[in-house]
Amino acid sequence: MSSCTSDLAPLLGGVANSSAAADYICNQFTDAGFAIDTTYLLFSAYLVFAMQLGFAMLCAGSVRAKNTMNIMLTNVLDAAAGGLFYYLFGFAFAFGGPSNGFIGKHFFGLKEVPQPSFDYSNFLYQWAFAIAAAGITSGSIAERTQFVAYLIYSSFLTGFVYPVVSHWFWSGDGWAAAARNAGESLLFESGVIDFAGSGVVHMVGGIAGLWGAIIEGPRIGRFDHAGRSVNLRGHSATLVVLGTFLLWFGWYGFNPGSFNIIFRTYGPSGSIHGQWSAVGRTAVTTTLAGCTAALTTLFGKRLQTGHWNVLDVCNGLLGGFAAITSGCSVVDPWAAIVCGFVSAWVLIGLNKLAAKFKFDDPLEAAQLHGGCGAWGIIFTALFAREKYVNEVYPGRPGRPYGLFMGGGGRLLGAHIVQILVITGWVSCTMGPLFFALHKLNLLRISAEDELAGMDLTRHGGFAYDYHDEDPSAHGGSPRGGFMLKSSPTPVKPKANQTATANQV
Amino acid sequence: MSSCTSDLAPLLGGVANSSAAADYICNQFTDAGFAIDTTYLLFSAYLVFAMQLGFAMLCAGSVRAKNTMNIMLTNVLDAAAGGLFYYLFGFAFAFGGPSNGFIGKHFFGLKEVPQPSFDYSNFLYQWAFAIAAAGITSGSIAERTQFVAYLIYSSFLTGFVYPVVSHWFWSGDGWAAAARNAGESLLFESGVIDFAGSGVVHMVGGIAGLWGAIIEGPRIGRFDHAGRSVNLRGHSATLVVLGTFLLWFGWYGFNPGSFNIIFRTYGPSGSIHGQWSAVGRTAVTTTLAGCTAALTTLFGKRLQTGHWNVLDVCNGLLGGFAAITSGCSVVDPWAAIVCGFVSAWVLIGLNKLAAKFKFDDPLEAAQLHGGCGAWGIIFTALFAREKYVNEVYPGRPGRPYGLFMGGGGRLLGAHIVQILVITGWVSCTMGPLFFALHKLNLLRISAEDELAGMDLTRHGGFAYDYHDEDPSAHGGSPRGGFMLKSSPTPVKPKANQTATANQV
Amino acid sequence: MSSCTSDLAPLLGGVANSSAAADYICNQFTDAGFAIDTTYLLFSAYLVFAMQLGFAMLCAGSVRAKNTMNIMLTNVLDAAAGGLFYYLFGFAFAFGGPSNGFIGKHFFGLKEVPQPSFDYSNFLYQWAFAIAAAGITSGSIAERTQFVAYLIYSSFLTGFVYPVVSHWFWSGDGWAAAARNAGESLLFESGVIDFAGSGVVHMVGGIAGLWGAIIEGPRIGRFDHAGRSVNLRGHSATLVVLGTFLLWFGWYGFNPGSFNIIFRTYGPSGSIHGQWSAVGRTAVTTTLAGCTAALTTLFGKRLQTGHWNVLDVCNGLLGGFAAITSGCSVVDPWAAIVCGFVSAWVLIGLNKLAAKFKFDDPLEAAQLHGGCGAWGIIFTALFAREKYVNEVYPGRPGRPYGLFMGGGGRLLGAHIVQILVITGWVSCTMGPLFFALHKLNLLRISAEDELAGMDLTRHGGFAYDYHDEDPSAHGGSPRGGFMLKSSPTPVKPKANQTATANQV
Repeated sequence: MSSCTSDLAPLLGGVANSSAAADYICNQFTDAGFAIDTTYLLFSAYLVFAMQLGFAMLCAGSVRAKNTMNIMLTNVLDAAAGGLFYYLFGFAFAFGGPSNGFIGKHFFGLKEVPQPSFDYSNFLYQWAFAIAAAGITSGSIAERTQFVAYLIYSSFLTGFVYPVVSHWFWSGDGWAAAARNAGESLLFESGVIDFAGSGVVHMVGGIAGLWGAIIEGPRIGRFDHAGRSVNLRGHSATLVVLGTFLLWFGWYGFNPGSFNIIFRTYGPSGSIHGQWSAVGRTAVTTTLAGCTAALTTLFGKRLQTGHWNVLDVCNGLLGGFAAITSGCSVVDPWAAIVCGFVSAWVLIGLNKLAAKFKFDDPLEAAQLHGGCGAWGIIFTALFAREKYVNEVYPGRPGRPYGLFMGGGGRLLGAHIVQILVITGWVSCTMGPLFFALHKLNLLRISAEDELAGMDLTRHGGFAYDYHDEDPSAHGGSPRGGFMLKSSPTPVKPKANQTATANQV
Repeated sequence: MSSCTSDLAPLLGGVANSSAAADYICNQFTDAGFAIDTTYLLFSAYLVFAMQLGFAMLCAGSVRAKNTMNIMLTNVLDAAAGGLFYYLFGFAFAFGGPSNGFIGKHFFGLKEVPQPSFDYSNFLYQWAFAIAAAGITSGSIAERTQFVAYLIYSSFLTGFVYPVVSHWFWSGDGWAAAARNAGESLLFESGVIDFAGSGVVHMVGGIAGLWGAIIEGPRIGRFDHAGRSVNLRGHSATLVVLGTFLLWFGWYGFNPGSFNIIFRTYGPSGSIHGQWSAVGRTAVTTTLAGCTAALTTLFGKRLQTGHWNVLDVCNGLLGGFAAITSGCSVVDPWAAIVCGFVSAWVLIGLNKLAAKFKFDDPLEAAQLHGGCGAWGIIFTALFAREKYVNEVYPGRPGRPYGLFMGGGGRLLGAHIVQILVITGWVSCTMGPLFFALHKLNLLRISAEDELAGMDLTRHGGFAYDYHDEDPSAHGGSPRGGFMLKSSPTPVKPKANQTATANQV
Repeated sequence: MSSCTSDLAPLLGGVANSSAAADYICNQFTDAGFAIDTTYLLFSAYLVFAMQLGFAMLCAGSVRAKNTMNIMLTNVLDAAAGGLFYYLFGFAFAFGGPSNGFIGKHFFGLKEVPQPSFDYSNFLYQWAFAIAAAGITSGSIAERTQFVAYLIYSSFLTGFVYPVVSHWFWSGDGWAAAARNAGESLLFESGVIDFAGSGVVHMVGGIAGLWGAIIEGPRIGRFDHAGRSVNLRGHSATLVVLGTFLLWFGWYGFNPGSFNIIFRTYGPSGSIHGQWSAVGRTAVTTTLAGCTAALTTLFGKRLQTGHWNVLDVCNGLLGGFAAITSGCSVVDPWAAIVCGFVSAWVLIGLNKLAAKFKFDDPLEAAQLHGGCGAWGIIFTALFAREKYVNEVYPGRPGRPYGLFMGGGGRLLGAHIVQILVITGWVSCTMGPLFFALHKLNLLRISAEDELAGMDLTRHGGFAYDYHDEDPSAHGGSPRGGFMLKSSPTPVKPKANQTATANQV
């Protein structure tokens, strides 16, 4: 769009003021572009935000009923605390260029916004990404983590660990970015093509969860006396399916929205070839990867377990999405099918490995987001197509692309560096944090609380009460409403009294 | 837009290169059009996809708790398997022109895409439609169908039966299309105006479900020994309402999105009259038809049953939507109210008829999508307004429109043909398929499985577990978590053992 | 956009027909503007509609299981009946200018639509707002109101009370509008800046609910014999969180969508400064106010009650949104944080006050929408920034803005008038209506019905049935499916018989 005036003015030669006329017309196109691109980006951001609802429902359904209030509170707070922290400094750390390549240093509290490269819509979109990472981690350590520990690690992750990673790979100043500012050299002359964040978002959340879950250890009862894996099923498959579909829905903001602008031509103006087409293709590759992973999981798990399980299919599907997120914009639809197929087996394999090592992640989040995310990064380095890479990351002719597509190994090299660097960075920041919390007895709840459930002891009561009763039958005494009458465990009456006393 | 350059160039006469200047400016408008239309179409596609979540929740809530995992799995797989099949050949069958008028033959695996008439966004939008048809059918045969039968009919429906129908009515090559390619003659000089698919989507799904439900017969206990109808209520009205609202939400992608492009003028440029206004009007007619059907059902059922029932209202609402889907773009808002009013009575009448004939459709899908869909096709032929028909289906001056609006009976003739042809085609394809599955003992589950519920016997366990217990109370033995303690039926412990043994 | 031709024509001087050429080009921009703005407005309308689903889930989760069907039916009907009434006359009352300043009188049944200022998309957007107000009120009087009373007050509120208020503040003819038609004088030379309706929507719904809840009195058991507050907890925290997130999601249509058009420059064309940027900023202020209110509530309630409660956090969050809705477009992000912080304490304080006065509002709707809404109106008058006020409400240089920003007290004066006028108008219309219904014994249900729950006695059965049983175990007798076997209260069998007899 920027060359519009210089292109058009000579063509209008002969009018009273050809330069002003061209400028006038071109500025109107610029305005239209802002209006179109902002509409596209904001609604994409709303979809990505909807993923937080998806996470909340997926997490709630995947834990036992007694911990539902706890996990949903963490999901609400991921968004809420994330909003404040990302406004105050997260966005600045991530995109506040010019930077030193490691961490940004402008835009604190949205100062200097709007400016040509960053408008409010960009902030909103990036905030919705930032809160996703923390949401992933909360799944890994569900059902056994103190709430205060959650508040601490979540703030640290959203406000510092994640923004730094996104700066490296997504900011024009980032040392490993594929779309690095003109004049700066690319890592391995390529940079890392992590288009929508298999690494930046999913691996970060997954590796953080891995450390949390390792340091906490498995939930009570998750492995029996003989060391066999016991399936502590979540309390509602309906919520899991609801959450999965909402995440699918939101992923259409996550991946196709990551272009940020849709009004941009590829090649000559006036043809079908433009970013709009690439946005659509990205929606298609995303869809196909998830679909393939779901089907592969369906049949793969059927062979293993003998039944058709929708919960497995949901996790397989999400693994496919986590994997394609890196390369969604630069691979062909057929390649997305390959991506999803392999992704399903990566998840199945890692889940077997986790059971073997008595690793307990109630949401399979470390395996799914960490493992399938890492596969997606490798996949991109193998299958990225030259044409698409040059369209989506323009201005660097001859840059490397996928190894299997004839683009050489430099992209793969950069992507292996990405996996190592993310694993290292998150391990060196979140690992010590979780360990310190553990040593300070701030990480894991007591065995009593774990058996009783966190909702009763810490969060004001049980999440459900399907058994209405006439309160007068209890002599008019206050009742918390959170006591399931048919399960008179010794812990609950005590909790009941406590909670009642606490209520106004 | 295409005449832009030829219109503008003479007006710019006198500039150095008037033709090139006009071309430059017009090409920018073309680009803007691609960006705007793709944004509009993709977000519409996302909304239509959200209907799959709506179906999943509606279906889950409408079946008994013991079959929840089963029905939700079919809904997830409609989307997932549909994605692969529609990519491989469904889209090609539907829109791969030039064709022989019966079935398309290009675009297999999205080859030759993008091109001016078909971009990736078109594929995504049509995929979201294709999976809706299969979702409708799965409701009709819920709670008693073998999973393998589902896999077979669903693939056949999404991959072949539905694409062929959509080719006939929606492809420029289709023999009955209202927007047939220039130069081709229209059926009864009119073609079929099934704008968003009361016939193409809803009748196809409904008729397929009709045959499935007839061949399977009613669920055990659905009619008592004396032949009276017994209401086997679904397990969660909340899920039904959630699903209904999500379908309503998604219908705003389904109907107003079916224009595919929004940046198109009607008449002279620069006025309010353009496709944007028709898109808005379509959203309004859709809304009013559903609202009227809901209110009519509320009072109609109140008179019949004596209570105000939200489940009836939800189904009435959806029937109104299924009916208006055909004519939503070519009728006035007041006519949409007529459409919804009649639609409610169509559904009430067909439900009475179904009970009389001992026809058991757990979702009322055949009655709702088949019956109200058929009414909608007739409705369009009666109330389509001349002005709107010529704006939405331009280039054929003097074409027929609604009978009651003075447009003659040719549109009605074409629409009766549509109803007959869809009924015949789906009956001749899906009927034999269901019958063959039945004869091969692949269609219906055993009575034991039906009483126990499919989730326990086939899908890895019960969907819910609200009664958390201390696992150590069971001597540390593995528990599936899916056993409701208060309902100790003889079947479940057995299933429990099986499932436990199957779990890793 | 309207000055485009007159600006461009002289620049094209020298071409054959400079005026026609300029006209041609400018008209295309006008068309593009219609396409862009309609896309933006329609998808915003869809999001606002999704709030109705959010309300339904929030309300359902906040009431006891035995009243779930009832409250969900009211939410569906708010949308359905609202659609008809708003089409027939509500939209005409609200926006049918030229008017007498009190009530509009054109556009009945959408006659004269489309026209330059009002297209179908405007109607759809305003309809989605109208139904929100009625939804708020239904929460206040939940669990004890006759269904026929609901039908009456809801129609009156959506069809008359609310449209009149929106006419005053949002129509160009409204006597208190900030964007009043050119030539008309502004209230206190300022008018009321209630951008998206903290007053017009939230206070209207909240004040109506206040009167309803006062006249009905508290639910049985809500205060014990000693007058102490007893928490009658809702039956599902999951539904509350689901509803809250959906409302958050929909609020991105409510607030940023209230610009109605996004393709409009502020100052010279071709720069970043335009309405698109203000739309994004509005999304950011909305987000930050809600986030801050949620966090403040989390810690505030923790200090009070000793636990971390997700239900409190959800209500706090929604209070923050209700508050920022007035000023979202004219304040800075940092001010939104102030807004949310105070809003949380307003809600906490009003809830304490409500308990003290034995005021029972099951959804805290009067406190939340009425109280936080009123705070938001004051907040706007204090923090509205000069630059933003003049951009969003242009054409009146020197108009007042926020008191704390140096803009004087006239805006605050106008806003105090708004609070008084809305309180008075709603009290004088809805108060007498509720009182008349009360006197006619049409308002509150009987104590027996209240104890049994409305679902069993009035709405066809209990909303849930998680305990599937073999129907043959009951000798093949019809079973309603709505009886929870483990809670044999004396009321239910009777209701069971009634309901069964009512079923076809």
